[in-house]
Amino acid sequence: MTKILSGAGLRGQSAGQTALCTVGKASSGLTYRGYGIDVLASKASFEEVAYLLLYGALPNRTQLHNYEQKLMSLRSLPEELKAVLELIPKDAHPMDVMRTGCSFLGNLEPELPFEKQPSLGLHTADRLIATLPAIVVYWYRFSHDGVRVDTHNMHVQSLAGHFLTMLHDVEPSKLHTQVMNASLILYAEHEFNASTFTARVCASTMSDMFSCVTGGIGSLRGPLHGGANEAAMDMIEPWKTPDEAEAELLKKLANKEMVMGFGHAIYSESDPRNEIIKQWSKKLSEEVGDTCLYAVSERCEAVMWREKKLFCNADFFHASAYRFMGIPTKLFTPIFVCARVTGWAAHVMEQRANNRIIRPSADYIGPDHADWVALDQRP
Amino acid sequence: MTKILSGAGLRGQSAGQTALCTVGKASSGLTYRGYGIDVLASKASFEEVAYLLLYGALPNRTQLHNYEQKLMSLRSLPEELKAVLELIPKDAHPMDVMRTGCSFLGNLEPELPFEKQPSLGLHTADRLIATLPAIVVYWYRFSHDGVRVDTHNMHVQSLAGHFLTMLHDVEPSKLHTQVMNASLILYAEHEFNASTFTARVCASTMSDMFSCVTGGIGSLRGPLHGGANEAAMDMIEPWKTPDEAEAELLKKLANKEMVMGFGHAIYSESDPRNEIIKQWSKKLSEEVGDTCLYAVSERCEAVMWREKKLFCNADFFHASAYRFMGIPTKLFTPIFVCARVTGWAAHVMEQRANNRIIRPSADYIGPDHADWVALDQRP
Ligand SMILES: CC(C)(COP(=O)(O)OP(=O)(O)OC[C@H]1O[C@@H](n2cnc3c(N)ncnc32)[C@H](O)[C@@H]1OP(=O)(O)O)[C@@H](O)C(=O)NCCC(=O)NCCS
Ligand SMILES: CC(C)(COP(=O)(O)OP(=O)(O)OC[C@H]1O[C@@H](n2cnc3c(N)ncnc32)[C@H](O)[C@@H]1OP(=O)(O)O)[C@@H](O)C(=O)NCCC(=O)NCCS
Repeated sequence: MTKILSGAGLRGQSAGQTALCTVGKASSGLTYRGYGIDVLASKASFEEVAYLLLYGALPNRTQLHNYEQKLMSLRSLPEELKAVLELIPKDAHPMDVMRTGCSFLGNLEPELPFEKQPSLGLHTADRLIATLPAIVVYWYRFSHDGVRVDTHNMHVQSLAGHFLTMLHDVEPSKLHTQVMNASLILYAEHEFNASTFTARVCASTMSDMFSCVTGGIGSLRGPLHGGANEAAMDMIEPWKTPDEAEAELLKKLANKEMVMGFGHAIYSESDPRNEIIKQWSKKLSEEVGDTCLYAVSERCEAVMWREKKLFCNADFFHASAYRFMGIPTKLFTPIFVCARVTGWAAHVMEQRANNRIIRPSADYIGPDHADWVALDQRP
Repeated sequence: MTKILSGAGLRGQSAGQTALCTVGKASSGLTYRGYGIDVLASKASFEEVAYLLLYGALPNRTQLHNYEQKLMSLRSLPEELKAVLELIPKDAHPMDVMRTGCSFLGNLEPELPFEKQPSLGLHTADRLIATLPAIVVYWYRFSHDGVRVDTHNMHVQSLAGHFLTMLHDVEPSKLHTQVMNASLILYAEHEFNASTFTARVCASTMSDMFSCVTGGIGSLRGPLHGGANEAAMDMIEPWKTPDEAEAELLKKLANKEMVMGFGHAIYSESDPRNEIIKQWSKKLSEEVGDTCLYAVSERCEAVMWREKKLFCNADFFHASAYRFMGIPTKLFTPIFVCARVTGWAAHVMEQRANNRIIRPSADYIGPDHADWVALDQRP
């Protein structure tokens, strides 16, 4: 299923080795350490998947319990970090907030140089998994509602539930926790995607984990990458019927606009994450009695395939699913961060374990030689 | 001169095109837009080089004057940013401070989506060039000396002089301004090095300039990259004589330790920046009446070449040069940031002008297929 292309964007070129993930490999599709994404999304908790990625194998019951406890115990934000988040205006981009919160935490709790660590960075990884949800929600609730949320909430164990509880002030329903959990698993890891590759390039200079994750957040922010779930929502939100959606989409395609939430750099026929999140979106649509958004989304899928053989990627049905759970659009990509930090950290640790600095070359297309001209002789 | 290697670290593989820089190309060496590094470092001002990189050609007198005025007018730090810097402890890593300051500024002064900008990001680039020196020095002076420096100092025009004035509270000598200026030029740009490549990967997702530069800072922090100038200083500082340096170096080589400030991913015989900064270091050494550090540095160079055919890269003699100017070691890599931000921004703009998302593949070395095992059945 992998497209063999080359040239621009390093497409199809190997930039290293990984034992973490396959993407679009014939007969295996998307796997995390050998486990298929469908089995993980239906059977595992996000914490189990994080443990699998970071610690190398599925945890047994005791290990999982201890890991859940550890993550809970790491939830609190330092006072200085809260003070920084309170200085960020309401109209800031939440991905800028996360990038800044992550970076700031690195000042307060720097890693030891990793040669001096027994673990290649595990502790910082766990700390970031535990705090990133609070970083964005603390800022969001403070700037939008004037509320200082309890980031160290110990009532709700799962990270999925923790996020939704901080956001909505009430514990989520079982269904919402389930969907959020599956969503975090779907977004946890994806081989050498642009943000993960950013984190690995950073790790290859022997920089610290906070720098690597901060860099990952910055890359995920772009609309060609994580930002696509928000862009998809913004696109479909105004469409009131499937027919309207179809007409508008056709206009976009005629104008050669990119349609966010469709297509993929590696997958060429379908994204295995789509089927899973689409089913959850349908369930949520029924729960809330929606008669528009899900139908609009399905029509988009049909039109894009009919017209362009373009398929929904992981982001497209995430838009409607998150909307049905009452999550503001601007928090969609931040949720992606809360999940993908597990993959980023696992890749950083893998890079550290067998490192050479990532330093490609470039094809030079500039002037051959330029002669210096004194300031007053310049045109 | 380019080594043709492949495989790990993308060495020798092209990851795209650039018109900005050649590194180690036969018969041209290091050039910025066609101009040799030696002519730039001896004849240009850093502002001229920044203009060359970002605006595409050397400025004429009016353009240069306007550009200098523009950069000066952009020096002030917003109050919220100062408040954040004041929250960062004295023992933080200054590269963490810069990464955070840059990221935080992105919350206050976000870019328009670049499709909506006439300039691909020029304004933010100039703003960052103008503020990054103040970001690190403001924090340094506040946390170390309890002083709030005037970041909008309008007496000193050059960025080189501005940095040193904020740091030392007095205007630098002509010699120090000259050296600092040359140093900033040497560090301004270097093709697809790890931090620049980080910035380009980030840009390729269509993320914003602040994310790209924040990512670049994180990658430059690593001791295999920008961090090498500090690591070199830490290494040579305790050595009191050339003979002691030689003995200690030989021990390190026998232990197969990496010696910071030597070797290069692309250059195989010499780094053209070394000759230039070495001469400045010698001049400074004479100025301050040093009888130890420069001699120790020269011996290191001779021993590394004799033993390993390893040559000084740009970082090695930067260590002694900065020390002679009274710059604290922990600010060495931050100065590199103040320079390289020009190259990063120029690469981001180049990437934006002709973009495809940078998304390589990986060679999978993990388990083929893993079967799900229920929690209580796990070992
Ligand atoms: C994901 C993406 C960046 C992959 O980029 P890529 O590997 O460079 O894309 P491809 O090589 O598969 O593109 C092949 C062709 O399909 C077009 N195409 C791809 N995705 C498209 C989309 N979502 N809408 C319209 N056209 C699209 C491309 O423009 C290209 O056309 P061309 O050959 O005329 O230039 C791209 O599909 C995209 O921008 N999608 C929208 C953003 C998105 O959803 N990102 C999240 C990814 S999980
Ligand atoms: C710059 C650097 C990261 C390039 O990495 P690279 O491209 O992977 O290095 P090379 O392929 O040229 O290395 C070839 C051999 O020389 C050795 N070598 C390279 N630089 C060395 C150094 N500074 N000290 C000791 N040995 C060194 C390598 O270990 C390698 O040995 P091996 O073949 O036994 O494994 C590397 O030279 C280095 O770490 N230097 C020190 C850090 C530094 O100064 N960085 C700033 C760069 S501007």
